[in-house]
Amino acid sequence: MTDKITVFFSSDGRAAEVSRNTSLLEAAALAGVELKSTCGGAGTCGRCQVRVLEGPVLHKETGLPVPAGPVLACQALAAGNVVVEVPRDSREAGHQILLGGKDVLAEQDGRMQGYAMQPLCRKIRLTLDPPTLQGNISDWSRLQAALREETGCETIHVSLPVLRGLAACLRDGNWQVTATVVAAAGCADIVRLEPGHRVAPALGLAVDIGTTTIVVYLVDLESGLTLGRKGTYNRQARYGDDVITRIIYATEQETGLSELQEAVVSAVNELAAGLLSENNCHSRDVHLVVAAGNTTMTHLFLGLSPKYIRLEPYIPLASAPPPVRAAELGLAISPHAPVLCFPAVASYVGGDIVAGVLLTGMAGEDEVTLFIDIGTNGEMVLGNRDWLVSVACSAGPAFEGGGITFGMRAMQGAIERVEIDPETYEVAAETIGGGRPLGICGSGLIDCLSKLRAAGIIDRSGQLQADLATPRLRRGEDGPEFVLAWQAEAGGGKDIVLTGNDIKNLLRAKAAVYAGIRCLLKALEIEEVQIGRVLVAGGFGNHLNIRDAVAIGLLPDLPAERFSFIGNAAVKGARLGLLSREAYATGQSLAGKITYLELSAGHDFMDEFMAALFLPHTDRTLFPSI
Amino acid sequence: MTDKITVFFSSDGRAAEVSRNTSLLEAAALAGVELKSTCGGAGTCGRCQVRVLEGPVLHKETGLPVPAGPVLACQALAAGNVVVEVPRDSREAGHQILLGGKDVLAEQDGRMQGYAMQPLCRKIRLTLDPPTLQGNISDWSRLQAALREETGCETIHVSLPVLRGLAACLRDGNWQVTATVVAAAGCADIVRLEPGHRVAPALGLAVDIGTTTIVVYLVDLESGLTLGRKGTYNRQARYGDDVITRIIYATEQETGLSELQEAVVSAVNELAAGLLSENNCHSRDVHLVVAAGNTTMTHLFLGLSPKYIRLEPYIPLASAPPPVRAAELGLAISPHAPVLCFPAVASYVGGDIVAGVLLTGMAGEDEVTLFIDIGTNGEMVLGNRDWLVSVACSAGPAFEGGGITFGMRAMQGAIERVEIDPETYEVAAETIGGGRPLGICGSGLIDCLSKLRAAGIIDRSGQLQADLATPRLRRGEDGPEFVLAWQAEAGGGKDIVLTGNDIKNLLRAKAAVYAGIRCLLKALEIEEVQIGRVLVAGGFGNHLNIRDAVAIGLLPDLPAERFSFIGNAAVKGARLGLLSREAYATGQSLAGKITYLELSAGHDFMDEFMAALFLPHTDRTLFPSI
Repeated sequence: MTDKITVFFSSDGRAAEVSRNTSLLEAAALAGVELKSTCGGAGTCGRCQVRVLEGPVLHKETGLPVPAGPVLACQALAAGNVVVEVPRDSREAGHQILLGGKDVLAEQDGRMQGYAMQPLCRKIRLTLDPPTLQGNISDWSRLQAALREETGCETIHVSLPVLRGLAACLRDGNWQVTATVVAAAGCADIVRLEPGHRVAPALGLAVDIGTTTIVVYLVDLESGLTLGRKGTYNRQARYGDDVITRIIYATEQETGLSELQEAVVSAVNELAAGLLSENNCHSRDVHLVVAAGNTTMTHLFLGLSPKYIRLEPYIPLASAPPPVRAAELGLAISPHAPVLCFPAVASYVGGDIVAGVLLTGMAGEDEVTLFIDIGTNGEMVLGNRDWLVSVACSAGPAFEGGGITFGMRAMQGAIERVEIDPETYEVAAETIGGGRPLGICGSGLIDCLSKLRAAGIIDRSGQLQADLATPRLRRGEDGPEFVLAWQAEAGGGKDIVLTGNDIKNLLRAKAAVYAGIRCLLKALEIEEVQIGRVLVAGGFGNHLNIRDAVAIGLLPDLPAERFSFIGNAAVKGARLGLLSREAYATGQSLAGKITYLELSAGHDFMDEFMAALFLPHTDRTLFPSI
Repeated sequence: MTDKITVFFSSDGRAAEVSRNTSLLEAAALAGVELKSTCGGAGTCGRCQVRVLEGPVLHKETGLPVPAGPVLACQALAAGNVVVEVPRDSREAGHQILLGGKDVLAEQDGRMQGYAMQPLCRKIRLTLDPPTLQGNISDWSRLQAALREETGCETIHVSLPVLRGLAACLRDGNWQVTATVVAAAGCADIVRLEPGHRVAPALGLAVDIGTTTIVVYLVDLESGLTLGRKGTYNRQARYGDDVITRIIYATEQETGLSELQEAVVSAVNELAAGLLSENNCHSRDVHLVVAAGNTTMTHLFLGLSPKYIRLEPYIPLASAPPPVRAAELGLAISPHAPVLCFPAVASYVGGDIVAGVLLTGMAGEDEVTLFIDIGTNGEMVLGNRDWLVSVACSAGPAFEGGGITFGMRAMQGAIERVEIDPETYEVAAETIGGGRPLGICGSGLIDCLSKLRAAGIIDRSGQLQADLATPRLRRGEDGPEFVLAWQAEAGGGKDIVLTGNDIKNLLRAKAAVYAGIRCLLKALEIEEVQIGRVLVAGGFGNHLNIRDAVAIGLLPDLPAERFSFIGNAAVKGARLGLLSREAYATGQSLAGKITYLELSAGHDFMDEFMAALFLPHTDRTLFPSI
């Protein structure tokens, strides 16, 4: 009797062959079926529900048989061949990924933000003098001399496989040769040699390694054109939604770190393969990768242990990791391609933020800019050419739909806008994609909160009012709740509600972000009005209604024209680093110029947080326009 | 019926399992039985004779069965299981390899020739400040800062595997850590990290990759001590004795280059393994290799095609090859260990000569030095601190025993000294090891030539005199010959003779070397007497009698005190580069400072060569003391 069994996911037509007593969650991962899981398989988040249609399944804790029907995939072990159905609610697929977003900055400042197009990697076409009895220096010396002149670099590196091909290459091309060179810091690295001048393109990847999503741009390094953009869900999510859960998994499981590394690398490989195939390009022509991610994601991407990021005094293994080779990570591109990661400021202000600050150009301007990236963490950088200060605050997963009864990410079916009639309390909801609502995403939640307050359904402290004449306001299992969409209208067969607890979670999230901004301003002794512009990046940046965000006290009360949404600033900053070595060098030095303010090290943050737990704020003078 | 058969070498107790119709020469190579072969298996040199004792053997050309008995191994195909005996004459084993030789220079100038002991690779013991909430830079930044201070290098490189171990290493050692660092050109490369300060040694290999022999020194990079020295026969010899034959093999056989590369790497690996085992050391502790070889040998060691070295205008692929990693070559030491090769001056003046010149220190002195390395090629460098000029001349294999009827390398049983009674013409011969003579090695041949001339047995043009009253002078198969040892005294069961043709070959060899020296002197317009010292390196350097060498006109007629034998200058120069980064850097720049004089480009050489075909020379004024 073999111990291998098959778990078939009927709705996907996919199967995994696994060892007996593998959990259905693991089987789904192996089959490429993406299930939600916030708790990392601990059985507590309840998101990975599946339906067992056929076959023997045992409960993980009790070992008792589980009858056909709904079960948490992480708690159910396949004891034989099993057929499983995955309900839409439990799926991660269909996630709307912010590939780039509105290019407000790009439109203003041009595609290169003022940097010259001079990529770290370029094709250099050389015509060499053929050797003679008098001019009889070696092939390698001849090539080095020409490249020194062309690049200005004194040191020319070459890998042994490339060097081995040199003699034949020069003669095949009749002394015309094209060198693909990565040049940085006075040192040029030849990553490829081709005979002649009509050669393959030089391609690069700009990568945003987000906690939730991974986005890749395929860029032609000679023309500067972005050939394509693709995004996918970060498969690490199966080990937990937030970075802390993943750090624990990487640290405490024997193969945890390599599993997490493999998860992100395979996602990048798939995106790259898709982009290459759509553009009829070859993976061997990809010679450079510039990646931006938060500190933990960058560690996991490189296979560096993130263990001490989580433990006081919160030390990353490497905040500015050295370049590595694609093959060392398992990236399926030219094996010698350097992979460069944007440096981090601190454990909780990562390379994604540095790439974003690079993109904004704020470090070169007189005007004071506030850059905000809101996701599970809220990271903010305030400053100008003279100073830059950053903070990070744990907003919690509420804005990404976590900890909210009907919260979901910004994907098909998510409510993103609501109107509430202040007389009748009737609700008109708009969903992403226009279909029936399945839940509420971050921008929808902010809108909701603003509109509930405007309609008087909640008070300044976020309490649902008990005595309103509407069936939408009712008592649910967990206390008072407000019905946003009735079962009949909804796509999930249930009333979609916002509970009192949901509202508390939202208030905490918005209060954390605003308290972070206040701490920044107070530390620098400047006022809100001195902020010349507010640039909002991140997952819901494009969909956020500024008036709502100001109305609930998430963003400071400034004139609308000072706000811009810059979308996925990390990947766009990475693209800039890919195309301009000067921009990349600026990014490298930026990390050292941004001062990090540790909020947990002082009492100010807690005071500010408490004060911000109201709508819009305890101190109404901070929000004069509301 | 399987196509695998076994060839058993009875005298060695070794067997090879090979495909049917594999040549006995190849089978011997696979079994690790080292046969002589000068022609590379072409069937022309006649050196690889073996005796078939049992089993079916076919002739390679005719396909006809070969009867039991003597056969050329390269021309005999094993058609079934075969038992073979290898006569002593056909063996390469027992070769006397010049590991170091008399350290005349070392005795004069101290072990480091004036360079400070500061190896390219060293162990740096660091005690770091533990991180705090205030001092919370990353582990990598902390290590970099400490290493920048310690090494003075701005750029600190690290490989991903080493970086991955950093966090655990720092904490395991309680913030004491030892970094093994290779530092050069303002850039430090961390090749290993160990917790604490009591750590494994840092070892290095100095390697001489000779055409005939390979010598390895195992060196402790902290103490500077040479822990051991070992040499072996270069297994490439099975593809031919001289570099040209090997270039042809590497170029024309599909896997030729990789076979030749593998042959030298496996020899280095075996020597290193032996040295490590004798010293109870681990291969993972070997962090640096500095190698010196002639241009072709360096190409073959690195797997670079030597094809164009042989074709006009004689272009090496790389005269100053970049550093490569041990793992790229297949060296069984720390995979990231850099392997540095001494640069060549030209296609026929290689890194072995540059290492030798480094060792002599001649490039730093006022006095004019003549450095001579005599092997198959004669390479000479003349110069001082202001100028250095080199030539190479093809001496032919005579001094290594090639092209001489009873020629052999300097091994057990080789005649190395003779005395000839000018009255009776009786011969007293001394052999290496003192046993019965088997043949004559290079120093013996020079001695012979000198004594034959002194006794009047040959005239100034090298002709054997016909009318002497001794049975030793006789007519053999190929014309006149002189018997050095009678069958009864000899170990091989035959009279050992020197023929007229042998003498011609020796004259050509010595004339080529002396003509090279003359060309050097004439090009620089200096006289013999202006040469302050003559340093002789190479395979027979230690055994050569100066008076004999001058008497036959091989070396210039200068006072005996100006001559020194420096033995294997290549490996000693490599050791110096291993222990002193300044010496290594000097070696790098030396190659560019040595002017190469192409002898084939002018008529002077042929004129000088013709004039030197006499004993000692046409122009007797050049040899006043003779």
